[in-house]
Amino acid sequence: MSPTQSVADLGEHELIARLERRFGPPPPWVTLGIGDDAAVVAPVRGEEVVVTTDSLVEGVHFLPADASAPDAERQARAGALGHKALAVSLSDLAAMGAAPRAALLSLAIRSDWPVAEFDALIDGFAALAALTRTPLVGGNITRSPGPLVLDVTAIGSALARKILRRSAGRAGDELYVTGRLGAAAAGVAVLADPAAESLGRETSFAECIGRHERPTPRVRCGLMAGRARVASAAIDLSDGLSDAVRQIARASGVGAVVEADAVPVHPGASAWAARQGIDAIDLALSGGEDYELLFAVPRRRRRAFLAIANRWHGLPVTAVGRLSAEAGAWLIRDGRREPLPSGFVHF
Amino acid sequence: MSPTQSVADLGEHELIARLERRFGPPPPWVTLGIGDDAAVVAPVRGEEVVVTTDSLVEGVHFLPADASAPDAERQARAGALGHKALAVSLSDLAAMGAAPRAALLSLAIRSDWPVAEFDALIDGFAALAALTRTPLVGGNITRSPGPLVLDVTAIGSALARKILRRSAGRAGDELYVTGRLGAAAAGVAVLADPAAESLGRETSFAECIGRHERPTPRVRCGLMAGRARVASAAIDLSDGLSDAVRQIARASGVGAVVEADAVPVHPGASAWAARQGIDAIDLALSGGEDYELLFAVPRRRRRAFLAIANRWHGLPVTAVGRLSAEAGAWLIRDGRREPLPSGFVHF
Repeated sequence: MSPTQSVADLGEHELIARLERRFGPPPPWVTLGIGDDAAVVAPVRGEEVVVTTDSLVEGVHFLPADASAPDAERQARAGALGHKALAVSLSDLAAMGAAPRAALLSLAIRSDWPVAEFDALIDGFAALAALTRTPLVGGNITRSPGPLVLDVTAIGSALARKILRRSAGRAGDELYVTGRLGAAAAGVAVLADPAAESLGRETSFAECIGRHERPTPRVRCGLMAGRARVASAAIDLSDGLSDAVRQIARASGVGAVVEADAVPVHPGASAWAARQGIDAIDLALSGGEDYELLFAVPRRRRRAFLAIANRWHGLPVTAVGRLSAEAGAWLIRDGRREPLPSGFVHF
Repeated sequence: MSPTQSVADLGEHELIARLERRFGPPPPWVTLGIGDDAAVVAPVRGEEVVVTTDSLVEGVHFLPADASAPDAERQARAGALGHKALAVSLSDLAAMGAAPRAALLSLAIRSDWPVAEFDALIDGFAALAALTRTPLVGGNITRSPGPLVLDVTAIGSALARKILRRSAGRAGDELYVTGRLGAAAAGVAVLADPAAESLGRETSFAECIGRHERPTPRVRCGLMAGRARVASAAIDLSDGLSDAVRQIARASGVGAVVEADAVPVHPGASAWAARQGIDAIDLALSGGEDYELLFAVPRRRRRAFLAIANRWHGLPVTAVGRLSAEAGAWLIRDGRREPLPSGFVHF
């Protein structure tokens, strides 16, 4: 294959054939995979079908490829995009307590896009799909005169009574968050810095870039919490902690309080904030795309929740506040109460 | 509302709220609709989940909006896009013999897009959704610096043994097609003609434009044929009759023969072909986007198939050829055999 071969040289049928070869035979619950008018997936008996779709748009959710960058770098970026497109939809399933069952990938690509980048994108998608046992069952590839658009639909499964809704939080529930926050937002900032290349060689910043480019969906955490019924509600941190807390509180018809001191900040985010002379807590609260999970946990389920969280292989879980009967979303900082800042705005 | 209000003036949350208001409360099988991390749909007990996704890209699948056109015309176009985006995915479900159960809509739109066009697009989608009882359960709205992209995932349901696969055709099966072909391709050609405006006032051409802009997915036909098990295989005519015949033959490991004289040509396509001095059969064979259905019907099921088709409210059903043991896809024209032409190429 010539390194400059473009997707238009191959055409849609051959691209789909490459994709099928990359994924291999689907698991037994896929009755009919890629290649017919639609795919057929057997539901888990007695469970509900959980479904979500999310998009990544070049120039909005990720920077346009740098035409002067070496091929290997461009391919690595494409691989990260394939990973991330699946990750953000799996994160939604995780926030519902659903097990991944299948995914569909819809791609709008320029005709002159190098096949090597297409392959790299598919590889990135396929690697996460294998890790999370999410077979690709279908999708669509179309040319577009515009930015690269990736749209992933993820289909999951869960028992109706174990689904983690946003709206089932209660006043008094404690709010727990997985991981350490602000890394993805710091990663975006590092990449936008003129000194990105040298900064990216510092370990803590490299980690931040990695978190932005290849977020880890907390599939197992959401699933275990849902199955054990240790949380009343959950949401993922696609638009930042503040936004997530507001959404759970609003959907549940309660208020919320977050303790600034308790919010776990990623060390890379702290380092970036120190360098910029800003408060790291702001990155952690308002920085989007961390794709961690926020759980509302009833007090009487606290021990059970922590026992479950103890099995998440070293992923920290931190109490950051609580839902309250009093309306509004508040931040306690330096002993004073202030409105919780607004979240990250995509649109 | 000001007529020039843009989607960016409202933001994603308000756009989603408008959309929710337009659709109203979902049917009982939607356990959880728009507004959480994911939607939850109850499967039909004992049935499989059938799922497909398809995209429409501005400048590829439809012409960019004409900035000088009156608002009402632009809104009508946006409404047609909303209709068509759902129609093409429902057509895929129809070709599987699946009943629609839910849909997700993913939109990439420019920030300066008028809210009135957004509303019109949603109205077009919602009208077809109501007609086919396909609740919108989720999706995604993102801004994009590029062309308008609509991506619809449709979820359907069918008993495993009643699903219409492409691959289950047998040599000797007769090929039946619904409707009359070539209209959508003629509609595209009329719209591209410098005299489009005056041509569009002629009834037969107006019908062709209508078929291109607002195709009718044959949901009930596919469903009834699947449930009654009167067809061995089915496919929709998204890429033309020739392509559909080739796909069924290839997937089923057989050959196929189409009789040119038997192919039902839409009168508008005939009129357009006569005007251009081309053979109408070529529009009917290679013109994409008719979204009719092609069925392979075993001889012993012929009567049962026609009895079912008799209940399709005047939609014609025509035998156009057969699957054969001999390899290859052939067209019999004027008593001579020639290779079946290639289909419409999207990519």
